[in-house]
Amino acid sequence: MQQNTYQPQQSARRANNENRARMLISCPDRPGIVAAVSQFLYEHGANIVQSDQYTMDPEGGMFFIRFEFDLNDLPKQLPQLQEDFARVADRFDMKWLTFRAARKKRLAIFVSKEDHCLLELLWQWQAGDLDADIAMVISNHPDMRELVESFGITYHHIPVTPDTKEEAERQQLEAVADKADLIVLARYMQIITPKFIEYYPNRIINIHHSFLPAFVGGKPYAQAYKRGVKIIGATAHYVTEELDGGPIIEQDVQRVSHRDDVTELKRIGRTIERVVLARAVKWHIEDRVLVHQNKTVVFS
Amino acid sequence: MQQNTYQPQQSARRANNENRARMLISCPDRPGIVAAVSQFLYEHGANIVQSDQYTMDPEGGMFFIRFEFDLNDLPKQLPQLQEDFARVADRFDMKWLTFRAARKKRLAIFVSKEDHCLLELLWQWQAGDLDADIAMVISNHPDMRELVESFGITYHHIPVTPDTKEEAERQQLEAVADKADLIVLARYMQIITPKFIEYYPNRIINIHHSFLPAFVGGKPYAQAYKRGVKIIGATAHYVTEELDGGPIIEQDVQRVSHRDDVTELKRIGRTIERVVLARAVKWHIEDRVLVHQNKTVVFS
Amino acid sequence: MQQNTYQPQQSARRANNENRARMLISCPDRPGIVAAVSQFLYEHGANIVQSDQYTMDPEGGMFFIRFEFDLNDLPKQLPQLQEDFARVADRFDMKWLTFRAARKKRLAIFVSKEDHCLLELLWQWQAGDLDADIAMVISNHPDMRELVESFGITYHHIPVTPDTKEEAERQQLEAVADKADLIVLARYMQIITPKFIEYYPNRIINIHHSFLPAFVGGKPYAQAYKRGVKIIGATAHYVTEELDGGPIIEQDVQRVSHRDDVTELKRIGRTIERVVLARAVKWHIEDRVLVHQNKTVVFS
Amino acid sequence: MQQNTYQPQQSARRANNENRARMLISCPDRPGIVAAVSQFLYEHGANIVQSDQYTMDPEGGMFFIRFEFDLNDLPKQLPQLQEDFARVADRFDMKWLTFRAARKKRLAIFVSKEDHCLLELLWQWQAGDLDADIAMVISNHPDMRELVESFGITYHHIPVTPDTKEEAERQQLEAVADKADLIVLARYMQIITPKFIEYYPNRIINIHHSFLPAFVGGKPYAQAYKRGVKIIGATAHYVTEELDGGPIIEQDVQRVSHRDDVTELKRIGRTIERVVLARAVKWHIEDRVLVHQNKTVVFS
Repeated sequence: MQQNTYQPQQSARRANNENRARMLISCPDRPGIVAAVSQFLYEHGANIVQSDQYTMDPEGGMFFIRFEFDLNDLPKQLPQLQEDFARVADRFDMKWLTFRAARKKRLAIFVSKEDHCLLELLWQWQAGDLDADIAMVISNHPDMRELVESFGITYHHIPVTPDTKEEAERQQLEAVADKADLIVLARYMQIITPKFIEYYPNRIINIHHSFLPAFVGGKPYAQAYKRGVKIIGATAHYVTEELDGGPIIEQDVQRVSHRDDVTELKRIGRTIERVVLARAVKWHIEDRVLVHQNKTVVFS
Repeated sequence: MQQNTYQPQQSARRANNENRARMLISCPDRPGIVAAVSQFLYEHGANIVQSDQYTMDPEGGMFFIRFEFDLNDLPKQLPQLQEDFARVADRFDMKWLTFRAARKKRLAIFVSKEDHCLLELLWQWQAGDLDADIAMVISNHPDMRELVESFGITYHHIPVTPDTKEEAERQQLEAVADKADLIVLARYMQIITPKFIEYYPNRIINIHHSFLPAFVGGKPYAQAYKRGVKIIGATAHYVTEELDGGPIIEQDVQRVSHRDDVTELKRIGRTIERVVLARAVKWHIEDRVLVHQNKTVVFS
Repeated sequence: MQQNTYQPQQSARRANNENRARMLISCPDRPGIVAAVSQFLYEHGANIVQSDQYTMDPEGGMFFIRFEFDLNDLPKQLPQLQEDFARVADRFDMKWLTFRAARKKRLAIFVSKEDHCLLELLWQWQAGDLDADIAMVISNHPDMRELVESFGITYHHIPVTPDTKEEAERQQLEAVADKADLIVLARYMQIITPKFIEYYPNRIINIHHSFLPAFVGGKPYAQAYKRGVKIIGATAHYVTEELDGGPIIEQDVQRVSHRDDVTELKRIGRTIERVVLARAVKWHIEDRVLVHQNKTVVFS
Repeated sequence: MQQNTYQPQQSARRANNENRARMLISCPDRPGIVAAVSQFLYEHGANIVQSDQYTMDPEGGMFFIRFEFDLNDLPKQLPQLQEDFARVADRFDMKWLTFRAARKKRLAIFVSKEDHCLLELLWQWQAGDLDADIAMVISNHPDMRELVESFGITYHHIPVTPDTKEEAERQQLEAVADKADLIVLARYMQIITPKFIEYYPNRIINIHHSFLPAFVGGKPYAQAYKRGVKIIGATAHYVTEELDGGPIIEQDVQRVSHRDDVTELKRIGRTIERVVLARAVKWHIEDRVLVHQNKTVVFS
């Protein structure tokens, strides 16, 4: 199989991000959090280049913050910084995570037969717009093997039938284990079981082809046509046990008219799905999304 | 009570529309309809200035068309033209209506306590952008009497309680009878009974403060906040027996974020509601909306 | 003159904001700014409820931050806090401002003959959505006196002719002096001279009825019609010496088609203008806008 | 070179369009046009399945109409119908064109080094969403040969330098002669000379990466960044002698903020460009666009 000669470009902005880190914090609100964290970072030699804060309710609500900071010799210094930060975190009862910007997240993309969402991610990756590694594509159909392999990406064909579902998920988990940080369901038309989801809490992004919560479940474009809506949409969300009920990361819409039959709605919808899924994945891999009580805080 | 000195302006385009008529037709599709109608109009001296056609399915589907035409001495000629047209209509099994553009539709606007949708309609009417007569405002509260009367418009305060609902609707019907062509529920927070709807089939427009079919029923902004949607919307639809289930005329949306609490969603939503309702009313009074099987064809 | 009985509502969220302040800072970027300010605020007993930061370029760029914080007994404590902050500000070469959230900005609205932007601001003010005081309306025409006075707002009719322009501006300045914090040109069709602007740098907001920089100057809808654009827009910007060239605060657009003549573009545009101007004013009065080199940073 | 195994799908709706034709007419308005044409079509056995009409001004303006009709045995019957229609056309001084829906338009796509617009067209073509034949891709660079040929499409590398421009255009014209009905400039960064344009009047579509008429000419994203706009856009237009001045077919926009530097604007813009160009090409190949006095009428 001949390899696609296109390689992802390095955009200038990412060239020297070896010393860039991101920190996501959520905790009950109380005075002094920003001061404590920013003082801590300053004392450890870090320069905060971006900060976004959201307080649900100053009286007893939750507090969320995202810092992006530069630190000389980060790869070497970060472990110590993380160890030291534990004391600050304990004091404020924080849930927190740090990420090195230079360490790209590794994606496993799941597809069935529709290729548009997969193609969008592949293109954006090629164009240097998706700052991630695509570790593999997994499909219950063999159809896209050649396409995927032409990008130099591993393709796993793992068939799924009602009888083999359990075994199929076992194979999927084996394939992604230690190889993927994020699973993207790019129009993967199979239900993921709670057991599988447990392994990737808030790390499985699905694109649903409707403006949720409208048109949950199957054939949303047919449902939209039947209802006669004047706008259709798509929704990217984290997968939870409740079908199409997980935390929404991003949505977008497009105007339609009575002239648009189901075929046309699908055609228009494909562009919305592609854009919405790519945006959600981008925000996730840039560590911009926090989840709290089935909702997201997106510091975009 | 002092009268508001502002009067609706006559835009130039409407000044000489005495000879303008509109014709709405729906029938099973078959060859020769456009030819038959346009030939008929031509032979009667009418000049077609706009035509819009929509065929659901050339094989056995429905056919919808809207003509706008000019005819010398229309007020005098129209009755004969209508009488003659019956033969064409019979031949094609048509449902059809004609309207004189110069005969403004008369609106009865129903409100409760929220005034933004009412104010938008009043303002557009004042600005000459709403080519209708506002025959009256009916409310189950007394609050807006002064405001409405300052525009020189009749205000009926008809209280509604569970016990008096039937009597209230009787009074409402009496008030609108022979005085209103279209009823606009401008955030009127009461359910209309099937008996009332029967008198105004596809002539009652409601604004629902969500992107239907998401968030049917009460408190849609609170529902939207809880679900964590990233876009909110509003929907104008004809009222049918099914709550929030009638044919959708227009929808629009606005992006929101995790920062927007219910109060803020309501604030943002008010602007969407105003715009969507005003657009739907405009299309209705310009005879641009056909209803077929709980969906609309809008020749906007 | 009878007074409009509607009074601006107090939304719950603003009810107890007596102790809320906002701080806007811009300075050359260097490490430690966030730490220094947040530490300072913490030591003074303030609780940061929102913070937004933007760094143009970590290497030698500008740094912008907006804090919103609560402080017990703020009206009494703020002067001391401001005095103490001078030391921090000096250290980082900061330009900075603090505002008490409870001290409403006072607006002077300038209009000519088009009333839609003025009406939008009046309505939003009435509805409690515009957290400001409207100190006065100034117009070069007498037409809207009654309307404005019905809201209990002072109306100054100051005619402007080429010959009297200088004198007119002198009268305007006299009227607004010590009474207005922000001047809103709500479709005021007169050029403001540099001399006037000098008194209100970045405190005069104009609404231009096009998507700037397209269609600078007069008759933008006629220009848009002639060029055959498929989308029209409006732009709210701070007024500078360059006509329609000041820092853009907000823009929005709406789709149009070949069917829309200039009259229709104006009608559609009115809604865009209203929404865009109201949003820009809202952000300004909530101290969300910083200006740097003819561009804005909007922490919305 | 191995061939891409994906082939464009036949959507059901196009399967049996052998008997479908489209007719575009423009002429001075006068009574009887619709009647004459629809009567003519009816008498020739054609069934009108869609009609769209636009009259600029009933008093002496231009009249535009698009018919879509089915006719048994169309390939054989159309020549006679066209011959007969000349009489009708003469009577009303019509400019008119007919097209067989089944005869796909042949595209020549011109590119330079940016591939996103080309990729979008290739992908939509593969997906069966672009009802055209892609006859060839012409580029002044060799870079995309492999990609294009993997789709089974001919690639012409025709270098362009200031000295060889004339010769290059001669080669381009030779390549497209008799092989292309429409030329699509998919981010082709060379000026087309008037001599070339003459061969393809209103049949060269360019995508300009700004919301025209804002930011004409080079580096529009850098211009947009400098001006500090809050929304960016893209414009598809027919190419005329005036740079970026031809009739606009379609535009779209996306919201941006102060956080978006030029690199980010380009990234966001790429999605807008792709969508806008694809829409414009779709409308052209479905014969939905009429040009009149440097503006388009789009019956979308």
